[in-house]
Formats: sequence, structure tokens, C-alpha cells
Amino acid sequence: MHDLLIRDCHVLRCEPSETTVLRHHDLVVDRGLISAVSPTGTTRPEDCEEVVEGRGMVAMPGLVDTHAHVPMVIFRGLAEDVSLETWFNEYMWPLESNLREDDVYWGMQLGLAELIEGGVTAVADHYFFMDRAAEAVREAGIRAGLGWAVFGSGGKQGLERSARFAAEWNGQEDGRITTWMAPHAPYTCDDDFLRQTAREADRLGVGIHIHAAETIAQTEASVARHGRTPIQVLEQTGVLDHRCIVAHGCGVTEDDIGILARSGAGVACAPKTYLKLAMGTTPVLALRRAGVPVGLATDGAVSNNTLDVWESMRLMAMVQKDRAGAPESMTLAETLHVATRGSAAVYGAPDKLGHLAPGFAADLILVDIGGAHCQPLHSIPATLVYATRASDVQTVIVAGRVLMRDRRLLTLDKREIVRRVSDAMERLQRRVPDKRIQLYEP
Amino acid sequence: MHDLLIRDCHVLRCEPSETTVLRHHDLVVDRGLISAVSPTGTTRPEDCEEVVEGRGMVAMPGLVDTHAHVPMVIFRGLAEDVSLETWFNEYMWPLESNLREDDVYWGMQLGLAELIEGGVTAVADHYFFMDRAAEAVREAGIRAGLGWAVFGSGGKQGLERSARFAAEWNGQEDGRITTWMAPHAPYTCDDDFLRQTAREADRLGVGIHIHAAETIAQTEASVARHGRTPIQVLEQTGVLDHRCIVAHGCGVTEDDIGILARSGAGVACAPKTYLKLAMGTTPVLALRRAGVPVGLATDGAVSNNTLDVWESMRLMAMVQKDRAGAPESMTLAETLHVATRGSAAVYGAPDKLGHLAPGFAADLILVDIGGAHCQPLHSIPATLVYATRASDVQTVIVAGRVLMRDRRLLTLDKREIVRRVSDAMERLQRRVPDKRIQLYEP
Repeated sequence: MHDLLIRDCHVLRCEPSETTVLRHHDLVVDRGLISAVSPTGTTRPEDCEEVVEGRGMVAMPGLVDTHAHVPMVIFRGLAEDVSLETWFNEYMWPLESNLREDDVYWGMQLGLAELIEGGVTAVADHYFFMDRAAEAVREAGIRAGLGWAVFGSGGKQGLERSARFAAEWNGQEDGRITTWMAPHAPYTCDDDFLRQTAREADRLGVGIHIHAAETIAQTEASVARHGRTPIQVLEQTGVLDHRCIVAHGCGVTEDDIGILARSGAGVACAPKTYLKLAMGTTPVLALRRAGVPVGLATDGAVSNNTLDVWESMRLMAMVQKDRAGAPESMTLAETLHVATRGSAAVYGAPDKLGHLAPGFAADLILVDIGGAHCQPLHSIPATLVYATRASDVQTVIVAGRVLMRDRRLLTLDKREIVRRVSDAMERLQRRVPDKRIQLYEP
Repeated sequence: MHDLLIRDCHVLRCEPSETTVLRHHDLVVDRGLISAVSPTGTTRPEDCEEVVEGRGMVAMPGLVDTHAHVPMVIFRGLAEDVSLETWFNEYMWPLESNLREDDVYWGMQLGLAELIEGGVTAVADHYFFMDRAAEAVREAGIRAGLGWAVFGSGGKQGLERSARFAAEWNGQEDGRITTWMAPHAPYTCDDDFLRQTAREADRLGVGIHIHAAETIAQTEASVARHGRTPIQVLEQTGVLDHRCIVAHGCGVTEDDIGILARSGAGVACAPKTYLKLAMGTTPVLALRRAGVPVGLATDGAVSNNTLDVWESMRLMAMVQKDRAGAPESMTLAETLHVATRGSAAVYGAPDKLGHLAPGFAADLILVDIGGAHCQPLHSIPATLVYATRASDVQTVIVAGRVLMRDRRLLTLDKREIVRRVSDAMERLQRRVPDKRIQLYEP
């Protein structure tokens, strides 16, 4: 007996310069992994514990969100039409001084509901009170790479807490939860702090997830203050000797791209945040030419304002075309490659996620392409990149377990979650401008 | 007895610098117009022929798509990752040499299904075989401003057909259908042709819907060839003496903006097309400062690839912030004003559409803001601009008639439409590169 059969779908395969659609294929899942991909009919439904009908739908790797602050959904819509400095200093960091452990737990659940409903099967999350976030991940059944965010101002104690969390939760839930060290950024963590972080990552065998070179202004400020770019700081403090997620890299220089390529770090691109806050954008085309993996990201819902990776994909493709003045660039195939294998590589699991082939994790989604906004279906890749909406995702599977079926969440109680979060709204809105967890002055 | 009562919704009112939400209000509709907006309970349901429950939903003016080529949905996804020149000369215009009357009829139905499902209640459409498109509009119940597109190469015969259509259909369906003269662009219609068009518009009392200054390159080419910008050409040929929709205006100069402001023309902004084809973008902030109405548009689905005006709204706001390097600009209030009253003005109905107040047309939509991606609801304007999806629209009403209820289309048979369009797919894909309806060389 096989564990699960997904019957008669169109299976998407993404290579850097070509997307293939295997029409009318079945996927067989055993022990959380894909065990076969074969033409419909090869495997008999009666030989499988569970059967999901995929008729007329696209089966593709679950989307991976390579940089998020999921629990921030609780502040959604509270910081609009402001500059980056104001966003940090007058909104986000004062708001977060109200943050309680329970807010993170319920906020994480709300954000995970949104992610799963939008076809995301793995998220690299960077936030506070991450033991509570991890509990939510355990219950939701999603895959997550979690890091307890820490500023240099948190000192030894903050760093130790972050490391303790990483040690405790890494590999939990049969490896569905992994952990990362999560220093905030070179402009909030000094060199010593980053060096200590790198040593902890060594000791624990985990990667490092950090913001760096978020804007060109940050890079210029770093050069003016320290004579080095933020990426050079990461290199010199040993951070880049580890598996690394760098968010957002809008301010990387050509030399920085060379450093990143030699290091094996990946870059998370969250284009909606950049547009809304006029931050420039990640040089995705140049990074990929240099061999640096690029993944899609949402960032937090206070800048985004959603956790919609479909929108991130579409925006990334369009913004790259626009900035390059080259509509021929960032093709459908390359965009889908970023969304699948690129994001899997940034997440640190290039051989496990982002591809529907035997031996890969059974993290996949079924997408309805029958809507009026997708028809007629001249091109499935074009439909997926430019027409599909998060609401077209019908079924979500992580490690062979069905988390959403026909748009019904099976692991989370959305009504209860919304009630809990709404109950805290009034307190969450309160801003004391002088009470903030950190100051933005890169 | 009143015709229709929409009960207990949050009514959105959009002013240029402020958005108001009237919580728990009712809307009363009589003879296609809004007759009252009042706190819930003021009107008794038993005094109304029909009642729609709006509990917990936002009632807002139906979206207006101020520039589209709706039937082009039949070619969706066929021209990706190509330059603007290639898009026209190797894809769009060869593809359209296959176009048949029936394709327009069924394509229009498919596109109208998508528009209605996405909360669009009025569309300014610019295409061919528009008598067939008008039939589809009549059946669908949507509001439309239709123009039969014509190139200068179509000569006197083409112009007369366009005028005949405008005369026959203007004001049909109790005014739900209006018509426009629809010359393609200054670079495909010479001065004489534009002057004749303006005379026809005079004679028929209709407006003129035209592409102009689509890119800076077009403006430069026009200046090099004729010593005038495309907008100056429109001024000098008398086109701007009429109610005018100018699409897309990415190449307008500062002087052009002054000309447009004096003329009373409106500009249709379709940001997704511009990003995908790297065309620059409409200077929305500068146009509005000068008093030129700006409306949202989708353009056709071969560049867009959808007819999603929510996405147009979001992209317009973000791209304006990004280009200005000013995240404080293009605020939520200003964006919603463009989406409602601005678009109504460009459509030529500033006193009839885009506002929910007594005397305005009962063209409105109910939007579900209860989804995980919208919660918690700290800010309804932020939710509408940056989180809401087309699929959140639940109910669509045009001139007091319910066209979609709880996401079920009441006037169109989607299954039959998709079948008809799919049947023609193979023929529609055929491109004979040397057989094109026009040549792009501005």
C-alpha cells in the first residue's frame, strides 16, 4: 500500500530556461516523500491509503516564503504611506514594544492560515518569542525554518536565548522544523556580536538568517561609517561561512555579488515591500547570473500587507523587466525557477524541496486553472506567473499530509484564530512613540 | 415599495484626501439609482422588493476599467517576454488577422465574466466587431462605453463603420451602453483622419477614446517626425475638444500635462502592461496635481494577463511611490479616490458613477474583508488597497440589478463560454508573421 495518490494532474517541472508540464500524471507519496511520478493509471487507487483527485489542476511544488515575519500579521495595515525611517521608528518598533508571547502564538496561527490558503508549504521566519511560533507551526503542519530575532542591544542574553531556541527546535517534527540563528542586521548588530553569532551557528550546525544591504542608502552609510559594505561586514565576521539567507539585498554592489556567489549564501527578494517603501529592488538578474540563489519572500504583513507569494512572484518578474528596460528578461521559465528551485535553495533544502520528483519531499499544491481569469489555457506557465491568484490554490500537502483540501483548512481553526487576534486589536494599535524596541539609524 | 435594499454593510466614501467608512449602513435602490444611504434599520426589509444582506462586508462603488480590449482574453498568454515592437508586430497584430466576429462575441462574454467576478461594473472598451461585443454587454448586464477601433489605414470606410456603430448603440439599454469614437493612436492615424474623427464625434455627441504617448520613445519619435508630441497632435486635430480617454500617457511631457488639464481629457493608467513591457509609467501624481482625472485600467489580457482592476489599483499606488522615491505619496485615500471617482470621471460619468450617494447609479459591489489575508481589520482602506483580491468580491450590482450574488454569476453561463472559447484555441494561436492588421513603427 502507498500512503497517498494524487491523481490525474498536470505536473509542473521548472528548469532555469524551460518549464515542462507533464499532462495527466499521477504522483505517489510514501513516508512523506514523492515515490513516483507517472502517467495517470500506472498506480491503482485501491493500492493507496488516500486518494486526492487532481483532474484538470496543476500540481506544482508548494511555494516557499524565504523571508517573513509571520506573526506581524497582527499589525497589518497600521503603518501605511510612511518613509522607511518612520516605518521603523514611529510605527513598527514602538508597536512591537506591546508584543506579548500570546500575540506571537495567535499571530503565527493567523499568518500560517493565510500562507497555507495561498499555497505556501515552507516559510523561513524571523521574529520574537519563537518558541510560541514553533508551537503554532507544529500544530499547523507547515514546514518552517525559524529564527529568534535578536539585536546587538539584546547582548549576550539575547544571543543565548536565540541559540537555545535554535538548539531545542532544530529537526523537530521529523525535520519539518529547522532553525536558524537570526541576528537582525549589520546596522543593529556590531562585528563582535556577529562573530559570536557565527560561532553559535558553528556549534549548533545551523544557518544564519539576517537582513543586509536593504537599501543603497544603508550600504552607503555602512561604507561611510566602517569603510565596508554590509555584505563585506558579513564576510569579515564569518557570517557568510555558513548557510545564509540574506534579506533583501537591494543595496548590494557588484563586488558584493561576487562575495555572495563565493559564499553560497542565498538572497530573499520581497518586491512588494520595496515598492511600497521605495527601497529600490534586489538585483535578481545579476545575482542569478553570478550563481547566487534567489528566492521569493513576502517580508512581514506590515509592509506587504499580505503573505501572498504569488504576488511576490509576479512583482519580482515585472519589476526586474521594468528596471532592466528589457521585457525579454526574467522569462516565465526563469520566474517559475526562482519560485520553486531557487526558493528551495535559499531555504537551504535544494535537494528536498521545490521539485516534484522521486526522493523529494511531498510538499505540493494543486492549483485550479479553470477560472475565467485563466481561460483559455494557451500557456500554463503564463497563467501561473501572471493570472493565478492565491485563492486558486485548492489543496495543500506538506510531507505527504493534506493541510488544505478543496480550500478547507484541516489543521487550523480560522474562526477561533480571528477571534483571538481581534480581541487584542485595541492594545496592539497603541503606539508610544518614545517606547520602541530599537532605533533605525543605519 | 423600494426596489432593492442592501442591508448592514460598511459604506465606503472616497474623497481626494480622506476615506470615510460609514459602518452599519443600508443602501436603498430605486429605478437603478441609489435613493438613500442611512444607518441600518432606517428602511424596513418588508418595504423592499429585494434584499441583499451585506453584514460585515464593505459596500463600495463598482470598479471602473477605463481602458480595455476585453475580447483579447482569447489570446491570453500568447505573447510573453517580448519587447513592445515584437509584441505588436510579431504577436498581437498577426494574431488579430485571425479574428472572427464570433471570437469577439465569446471573448467579450469571457472577459465580462472575469470583470464581473472581479467587481468591475463599467468598462471602456476599445476593439473590433463591436456590434458583437455590444450584444454580449447587453446580455451580461454590465455598464460599458464601447468604441469600434480603427486605424488610419482603415480609411473612410473604417471611420464610417466606427461612427455607424457609435450612432446605433449610444444610449442603448437605458443608457447602460454608451459609445465612443475609437481611433487607434496618433502614430497609426494621420492628422486628417483624426480631424475627421473629431468631426464625427461632434456630429454624434460622443467622446473619443484613443491611445497616445504610450511611451517616451513614441513621444520622441513624434517630435522627430512631426515636430509635435502626440498630445499636441491630439490638440491640433481637435480631438481634445471632446470628452476624451487617453491611454496610457507614459510619455507625456510637462507641457502635455498642461494641455490635457486645459482640455478636460482623462488619462487611463494600466500599470501592469507598463511593467511587463518596460514602458515607463503614467505620471499619475503630476497629472492629478494639474487637475487631470486619472482612472484605473487593465488594458488587454495579452499584456496584463488578466482584467483585474484590484491589481491595477495596487500596482498604480506602489509604482507611483517607487518612481517618486516617496513612500508618503499616493496615499491610501488618493488611491481609492482614483479607483472610484477618478475612474468615473475618466469614463465620462463623474456625477453618475464612483460614489455611493443618493442620485448616483446603483453600481456597487460587496467585498468580503473577513479572509485570513485581511485580518485583523486595523484599516479598511489599507485592506482594500493592499490586501483584497478580486476573489473577495461577493456581490455585484449594476443599475440596481444583481449580476453576481455570493460569487455566482447570474447573467452569464461560464461553462458554455469557456467551452466556446476553448473550441477556437487552435485557430487563435496560429500566427502568420507576414499577415498582420497593422505595423508598429511610431
